[in-house]
Amino acid sequence: MPKIIEVKKNVLAKNDEIAARLRQTFAKAGVTVLNLVSSPGAGKTALLVKTLTDLKERFRMGVIEGDQRTANDAERIAATGAPVVQINTLSACHLDASMVETALPEVDLHGLDFLFIENVGNLVCPAGYDLGEAMKVVVMSTTEGEDKPVKYPKMFRVSSAVVLTKTDLLPHLDFDADAAMACARSVNPALVPFRLSVKSGEGLAQWYDWLAALRR
Amino acid sequence: MPKIIEVKKNVLAKNDEIAARLRQTFAKAGVTVLNLVSSPGAGKTALLVKTLTDLKERFRMGVIEGDQRTANDAERIAATGAPVVQINTLSACHLDASMVETALPEVDLHGLDFLFIENVGNLVCPAGYDLGEAMKVVVMSTTEGEDKPVKYPKMFRVSSAVVLTKTDLLPHLDFDADAAMACARSVNPALVPFRLSVKSGEGLAQWYDWLAALRR
Repeated sequence: MPKIIEVKKNVLAKNDEIAARLRQTFAKAGVTVLNLVSSPGAGKTALLVKTLTDLKERFRMGVIEGDQRTANDAERIAATGAPVVQINTLSACHLDASMVETALPEVDLHGLDFLFIENVGNLVCPAGYDLGEAMKVVVMSTTEGEDKPVKYPKMFRVSSAVVLTKTDLLPHLDFDADAAMACARSVNPALVPFRLSVKSGEGLAQWYDWLAALRR
Repeated sequence: MPKIIEVKKNVLAKNDEIAARLRQTFAKAGVTVLNLVSSPGAGKTALLVKTLTDLKERFRMGVIEGDQRTANDAERIAATGAPVVQINTLSACHLDASMVETALPEVDLHGLDFLFIENVGNLVCPAGYDLGEAMKVVVMSTTEGEDKPVKYPKMFRVSSAVVLTKTDLLPHLDFDADAAMACARSVNPALVPFRLSVKSGEGLAQWYDWLAALRR
């Protein structure tokens, strides 16, 4: 059973200070930390489950899961065998650095190559909170509109990579993947783009190669 | 061209007071106001465009559109011929009552049967803000997880109806629509459930009949 930690929303001016401390801790432990952000339902958990399963022989990976309620996602992650801690934010609409710091004693950073932080599903608020991560990765699915990046620009500006998920559904959708990626890169030209399907496996190799190169 | 109003986030303890005033204004004008909430990409705009088009001979309908940025959605709405005002919330992750009050002089309530307020795509924050609406309608799509209602329970508790969209995609998804609706009603047994596809037309008749019965 994944561990559940409940924290109250704590709007801290000190968020950046705590995040800087976390970043030092992560660097010292030699762990690469990715903060995964998206709308609810974009497929963050499915991508993590697939990644943890496919790469388990290559890397040691842990997960911090953020949700308002339930440990459903943490249970899906735990089924892969990866260590996972669930943070329930209750009323809060994002993780903040103090929540991650509170959860950290439950995470054995020693020996991890990667720590994935799955943020609360929300394309707005998590953009404002540094969690000490190496980078944010914004996930969007082919079932959302192509113009999400210009409608929620801050999230795409603060992220370093964009993952377009559920590409297996493209034949059934009126969704222009090229337009969506062009839209994302119009907001932030530095975004590293990925297109993949956890279901068909398409595009996963590029995602895995990129992760491998990020390893400290 | 739809009108664009930019407002700064204004976290008011007075939100409820303004919402009560709006509710009186709406009652006096005889207009039924629905506040549509969902994750980004669940299909609120597509549902509105279809509804406005199909019911234009039966009802007079107007729209207030909320997005952080852009008038993309308002332009899609305006193409139906319905009057629409765009509110750009900039940094704010939800509409509040003062934003609606600011936009109201641009909306000719006189003679409207329905006013639809399309909230910012966010399954968390808009739950806390009364906009003076008759009710909130939460929209979720078949491409999200079935357990969204228990992970974001507040939104499903404060809503009066739940619309499951994109049912045309069900054959291509591992999504149990019965489980999703059962999950929603476990959080709030009073939710009126709809399942529909704007693309195939399935389920729209029930949605339209329900709207017709809400007319003041």
